[in-house]
Amino acid sequence: MDFAPSPRAADLVQRVRTFVETEVEPAERRVLRDVAERRARGDDPWPPHALIEELKAKARSEGLWNLFLPAGDGDRYAARFGTDGGTGLTTTDYAAVAEETGRSALAPLVLNCNAPDTGNMEVLLRYGSSEQQERWLEPLLDGRVRSTFLMTEPGVASSDATTMEARATLEGDDVVLDGRKWWSTGVGHPDCAVGIFMGLTEPTAHRHRQHSMVVVPMGAPGVRVERMLAALGHYDEPLGHGEVTLSNVRLPVDSILAGPGRAFEIAQGRLGPGRVHHCMRLIGLAEKALELACQRSTQRVAFGKPLAALGGNRERLARARIDINSARLLVLHAAWKLDTAGAEGARSEVSEIKAAVPQMACDVIDLAIQLHGGGGLSEDFPLAAAYAGARSLRLADGPDEVHLGVVARHLLRPYAVAAAGAATEDPTEDAG
Amino acid sequence: MDFAPSPRAADLVQRVRTFVETEVEPAERRVLRDVAERRARGDDPWPPHALIEELKAKARSEGLWNLFLPAGDGDRYAARFGTDGGTGLTTTDYAAVAEETGRSALAPLVLNCNAPDTGNMEVLLRYGSSEQQERWLEPLLDGRVRSTFLMTEPGVASSDATTMEARATLEGDDVVLDGRKWWSTGVGHPDCAVGIFMGLTEPTAHRHRQHSMVVVPMGAPGVRVERMLAALGHYDEPLGHGEVTLSNVRLPVDSILAGPGRAFEIAQGRLGPGRVHHCMRLIGLAEKALELACQRSTQRVAFGKPLAALGGNRERLARARIDINSARLLVLHAAWKLDTAGAEGARSEVSEIKAAVPQMACDVIDLAIQLHGGGGLSEDFPLAAAYAGARSLRLADGPDEVHLGVVARHLLRPYAVAAAGAATEDPTEDAG
Amino acid sequence: MDFAPSPRAADLVQRVRTFVETEVEPAERRVLRDVAERRARGDDPWPPHALIEELKAKARSEGLWNLFLPAGDGDRYAARFGTDGGTGLTTTDYAAVAEETGRSALAPLVLNCNAPDTGNMEVLLRYGSSEQQERWLEPLLDGRVRSTFLMTEPGVASSDATTMEARATLEGDDVVLDGRKWWSTGVGHPDCAVGIFMGLTEPTAHRHRQHSMVVVPMGAPGVRVERMLAALGHYDEPLGHGEVTLSNVRLPVDSILAGPGRAFEIAQGRLGPGRVHHCMRLIGLAEKALELACQRSTQRVAFGKPLAALGGNRERLARARIDINSARLLVLHAAWKLDTAGAEGARSEVSEIKAAVPQMACDVIDLAIQLHGGGGLSEDFPLAAAYAGARSLRLADGPDEVHLGVVARHLLRPYAVAAAGAATEDPTEDAG
Amino acid sequence: MDFAPSPRAADLVQRVRTFVETEVEPAERRVLRDVAERRARGDDPWPPHALIEELKAKARSEGLWNLFLPAGDGDRYAARFGTDGGTGLTTTDYAAVAEETGRSALAPLVLNCNAPDTGNMEVLLRYGSSEQQERWLEPLLDGRVRSTFLMTEPGVASSDATTMEARATLEGDDVVLDGRKWWSTGVGHPDCAVGIFMGLTEPTAHRHRQHSMVVVPMGAPGVRVERMLAALGHYDEPLGHGEVTLSNVRLPVDSILAGPGRAFEIAQGRLGPGRVHHCMRLIGLAEKALELACQRSTQRVAFGKPLAALGGNRERLARARIDINSARLLVLHAAWKLDTAGAEGARSEVSEIKAAVPQMACDVIDLAIQLHGGGGLSEDFPLAAAYAGARSLRLADGPDEVHLGVVARHLLRPYAVAAAGAATEDPTEDAG
Repeated sequence: MDFAPSPRAADLVQRVRTFVETEVEPAERRVLRDVAERRARGDDPWPPHALIEELKAKARSEGLWNLFLPAGDGDRYAARFGTDGGTGLTTTDYAAVAEETGRSALAPLVLNCNAPDTGNMEVLLRYGSSEQQERWLEPLLDGRVRSTFLMTEPGVASSDATTMEARATLEGDDVVLDGRKWWSTGVGHPDCAVGIFMGLTEPTAHRHRQHSMVVVPMGAPGVRVERMLAALGHYDEPLGHGEVTLSNVRLPVDSILAGPGRAFEIAQGRLGPGRVHHCMRLIGLAEKALELACQRSTQRVAFGKPLAALGGNRERLARARIDINSARLLVLHAAWKLDTAGAEGARSEVSEIKAAVPQMACDVIDLAIQLHGGGGLSEDFPLAAAYAGARSLRLADGPDEVHLGVVARHLLRPYAVAAAGAATEDPTEDAG
Repeated sequence: MDFAPSPRAADLVQRVRTFVETEVEPAERRVLRDVAERRARGDDPWPPHALIEELKAKARSEGLWNLFLPAGDGDRYAARFGTDGGTGLTTTDYAAVAEETGRSALAPLVLNCNAPDTGNMEVLLRYGSSEQQERWLEPLLDGRVRSTFLMTEPGVASSDATTMEARATLEGDDVVLDGRKWWSTGVGHPDCAVGIFMGLTEPTAHRHRQHSMVVVPMGAPGVRVERMLAALGHYDEPLGHGEVTLSNVRLPVDSILAGPGRAFEIAQGRLGPGRVHHCMRLIGLAEKALELACQRSTQRVAFGKPLAALGGNRERLARARIDINSARLLVLHAAWKLDTAGAEGARSEVSEIKAAVPQMACDVIDLAIQLHGGGGLSEDFPLAAAYAGARSLRLADGPDEVHLGVVARHLLRPYAVAAAGAATEDPTEDAG
Repeated sequence: MDFAPSPRAADLVQRVRTFVETEVEPAERRVLRDVAERRARGDDPWPPHALIEELKAKARSEGLWNLFLPAGDGDRYAARFGTDGGTGLTTTDYAAVAEETGRSALAPLVLNCNAPDTGNMEVLLRYGSSEQQERWLEPLLDGRVRSTFLMTEPGVASSDATTMEARATLEGDDVVLDGRKWWSTGVGHPDCAVGIFMGLTEPTAHRHRQHSMVVVPMGAPGVRVERMLAALGHYDEPLGHGEVTLSNVRLPVDSILAGPGRAFEIAQGRLGPGRVHHCMRLIGLAEKALELACQRSTQRVAFGKPLAALGGNRERLARARIDINSARLLVLHAAWKLDTAGAEGARSEVSEIKAAVPQMACDVIDLAIQLHGGGGLSEDFPLAAAYAGARSLRLADGPDEVHLGVVARHLLRPYAVAAAGAATEDPTEDAG
Repeated sequence: MDFAPSPRAADLVQRVRTFVETEVEPAERRVLRDVAERRARGDDPWPPHALIEELKAKARSEGLWNLFLPAGDGDRYAARFGTDGGTGLTTTDYAAVAEETGRSALAPLVLNCNAPDTGNMEVLLRYGSSEQQERWLEPLLDGRVRSTFLMTEPGVASSDATTMEARATLEGDDVVLDGRKWWSTGVGHPDCAVGIFMGLTEPTAHRHRQHSMVVVPMGAPGVRVERMLAALGHYDEPLGHGEVTLSNVRLPVDSILAGPGRAFEIAQGRLGPGRVHHCMRLIGLAEKALELACQRSTQRVAFGKPLAALGGNRERLARARIDINSARLLVLHAAWKLDTAGAEGARSEVSEIKAAVPQMACDVIDLAIQLHGGGGLSEDFPLAAAYAGARSLRLADGPDEVHLGVVARHLLRPYAVAAAGAATEDPTEDAG
């Protein structure tokens, strides 16, 4: 139960921290201002800002690139695609790095460590054919293209993936995709070249064997980005979240990852580390919000005193300090469990953090907003966007309630819930 | 302690409810969609939608116009400017009406009952000269022009109005305005013709006698809208919230409402009913969110059951039901107190609702968002905008903490806090 | 929706307040001290203190007696048994009185308005035969005897009364009672002469028609008080809460109230007003705790300042002020609904208060304890006992969760939950 | 940052767990029942139950004795006084052991690891003269005598120790103690032979140099236990918490530990590990409560289902699981910080756990109570006593608010709070 980053990771944490602070954060302020101005002028806010490519090159030259690559599976790419040290990191080690990248909305993109690209790359790494790896994984690792994940659907409860309506139908040597997906992150970016699609293939199989994951080029005929979605008012350019229709998209059958019916199996492997990454980035984001809150509350004066000296503000700041610290330890513990017990062995631990950390981050950011007054609501501080991001993660990758259900299931299992009644009650047994 | 609306008000409540449901809400959906499309096309999202003027005419023809006009002071305008029944309403009666207008973001505008116009009109009604009333109040009551309130400043803690940096300097027969204001609601509208500005006039007077309120034409030389502000990602077109600079704006001295140094006095009278209006609109908004949550949770199915049958959802919905009902009664009680004890006598009651209701509304809306999944975060439902609005009201018109301070002051006064220590501690004694 | 007490009730409120403050509270302090000393000396703490009878006589002589008697049904007894004014009070009027009695643990007993005697008296009033009324109701109204309610059982979930295991079996002209009951309040008192017992009579009837309520003399052969129970460490002498066994207790069949199978029907009528009484007493109790908290926090000094000037204490006190005020209005509204719409029409409103008010009272009392430091935990202040009482009411008369279920059921009914799934889910359809 | 217990500690954890489960818990149930019966019979509930001495002997024979002894200072006593392995444990290692002892109220006593004896023994170990060690420490380590800590006072805010009124006056070769102390744990036990008293000696010294700690034989003339105090209704026999007066208690001056004026310095060293012990025991207690809650909610049926299948119960259990896990990691981290950075370096971390863990434990225990229904309030389950214990720890050893203040101070220090205003505001700078 040693959560401390290894010496190598500790060094990377320090370097990422410095890079984010000195390179990314100043750039981010300029990017946000420029995007706001574009929007105010009625210009298209979507095209990626030129600064981003500059920063990517710089990050890569410093080896701060593709750090998400997992030790083991990721090793063979790490050296070739810029990861300092030349091998992948354990989940625990990368978690410590991910916290630093979470301090800036731009940093994951700049370090080629952003969702959903990391998850997609991991899937291609583990389940992709060598052809798929060459065609898609390598350009993704190179930062030349971007990707999306086509899973969530507007018409059904995505918390229960078995209700999915999209289809990946086998027709001879082809697989044909149909369906409507949304919250497909990344489709707003002009480099978004490939998606991983999840759909129903074998309706009569065991319900966890019915769905397939398919690699779909975004330029394939029948794929159409219908619109971009705002999350609590934020479009999150340049990646964005889109609604995408797939109409009779015909692809060779070997586009199916690992073969038909294995989508749930693949998703499980994908989601464990991904949730740790999300949660550790949220720890970084909450930490950043707390720093802003401390700055503001010691500098801004009302009623003759700094805000920190008024009412319950100090206590609230202290609670935020405690809550972030607890949450960080919980995430590091889950990462360590993933490293030592595998995805299945860490199922409850991963759901624990996913149920707890986004809410914690929302609360800390909300406190920071309140201490910033009207400014906290505006785009002058990164807080409103941070809140939108943290709030979204109470839904994305499984809503809080589903994860609480997973935790409850593991907790209660030893107590042998009387079969009938309780079994039908379990709202989580199929949850991702 | 009778909170029931009078028969006349009960009738108005019913008619407003029907009007909002059958006329405003369908229009609102179209307006929001059209504005979203404008924005997606890169068109200017700000120009008011043509439907709004149509609805205003219809509302006025039905007498559902200027219902905010207060009984007594407002009577002489009520008949002339379209209020059904021809006289103003008590705060209690209007509170019941305001709840209905709160169900739609568009309704207050359509019924000529939106902030900050209502507050500005009340100030002009009570403190304006007959010339000011003719020039500004009547067109406002007519819905021909709109207004803004220039109070909050970016550089200081607006929770403590005595820190205000803007100046309203007397120079001979003129008053000269200088300063930077923000969160000036309404300045995005092309009809925004007039503002009420608050600034420092007499630095050596008692601290509640230093500031003046000045009527300033928005077209006066030196007034400049610098930019529009987003609140949690929402610009709230067509009214919007702006940052406004005033540079050497020279006006005749009789532009000062009620004479120099009376801004705090005027603000007190303005804010009591205004806070009741805000809170009752939030009750309506929370009620609307709860209705959407109930619809969603009985229609959307996951794990083979409607969401309402899963986990703690029913309990959360029940708590929302209880919290809205409690909050409504608390607001009605504060309204009744304002009617029977006046602004000074209802000081604690008004702060109680302002400290409690926005948070309650945030919580209920957040629950509704969660039950809507990703859709709840998007613009497909009015929930994200509702959240932004409710959250903003935890800061606007005094942050929660200041109002809690007012409540504590009234609560503890009888216990005779030992003078020295406690007096210097009171963070609320100057708070609005 | 007029919640104000009538002029008569307002007068009674004032008189009860004065009586509680000047007579009961000083006596209560002495009683508690004497009981603590008895216990410390190893003497029996149960025998009622002589002061109580003195106070009862005084209360009765002032007409502050049996004020719970409901207008209508209670009128014929009110004059005869000491109620000032000679007629019963509406639920709304009595609610205002009950708040005052809640300020002291002793006051309800002294005013002959304590649970479960009031509920038992109401049941006898509405459903008792004239013989039962003469034998039991009149001495109860006279304060000569006390009573208990034998419903809750240790072996089953009392939240679901249909699971009850005790039996009231018809055998010829007799009814035979068997079972184990607990939390039977009042059985510790030497005057406890009668109980109302609930048990299963007709297992094949509709599940709300299976149970009977039976009037059982506590001295009947086979009735045995096994032990007294502490609630969070408090035995609540002299009434106390007991575990009672009934073994082959044979009574004439006319001991069954209103005839066999009507227990649920009777319980419904009993519980509505009873819950209002409980909740209003909790309002009074919370108000008392807040007063103590205000006193303490303005008098006790730490770090050179009164506690009220430290950290978030003022904010917490303000929130307590708001929460009590909201809760009071909610209870008064439920009382008014009971008066105007009857028990069935006020079902949701009554469950709303029962789900919300005990938790609110716990929170306020807990705050007061915290501000009192170690003293708050001790018997030197009435706070520990108050906490135990309020906490017990999150379970007694239906746990929070059951009441939230009732509220949810009423809330969701109009949304036509799809039959199958949801119906089996409803955890509250049988709840009392 | 490795929190895992060492192999030796892991072995001890396992053995303590087994011992507590198989030996202590069954005995505890019998002891509690016997004490309850004594009380019911009017017998003196205080004399220690004979089973306790039996269990102490057994624990000692198994080496599960004095495990609190700290590595280093404690080593020389560990072998001699029964600690398995013969040397003391690190704070991190002992923390893991302490969790197991927290599962039973009796276990710490049986293992000679209960507060305040452990803290007193540590103080004697570090600051006692060899004569004091021989006279008091060795019998304490032997389990032949018990001790108390005489610090908290009824008349002043003990959160601010500088307000202490008791005096330890130097008179020639004597020190004379006067004052009234309360919440002196252990004085109810007949073996309580010695106290460590804290009082004012040098009023003109720096405020952290004014107080002395004095070793006082409980049999010294002038020491008098006035009464035993209940904490939320629990007297916690056989140790108990007493109110103690000291009137002109004259002792040789070398009774002062480490010399006059060093009480604060000694207290600091004492309190860090002590708070870790308290918090880890609370983790064990909360874990035990959660186990009971899981058992109950899978066994007890209502509305045709186990409680775990109703409403939000599963979610609440899951949250409890998460909260305990987070809290445990936070405590282990604080222990590790104490081991690696010392008391001063771990100041914030220790206050973080002290502010967070007791509240967490209260919440989990409260949930378990609720799921147990009326039984949860009674003495039939250890939950009511557990709640009283956890709640007391929100006050003992510094109330939550003081610890939040310490956390805030450390958090805000780097932000250089503008001197004047903020300095006078800091409510925590003197807090223990």
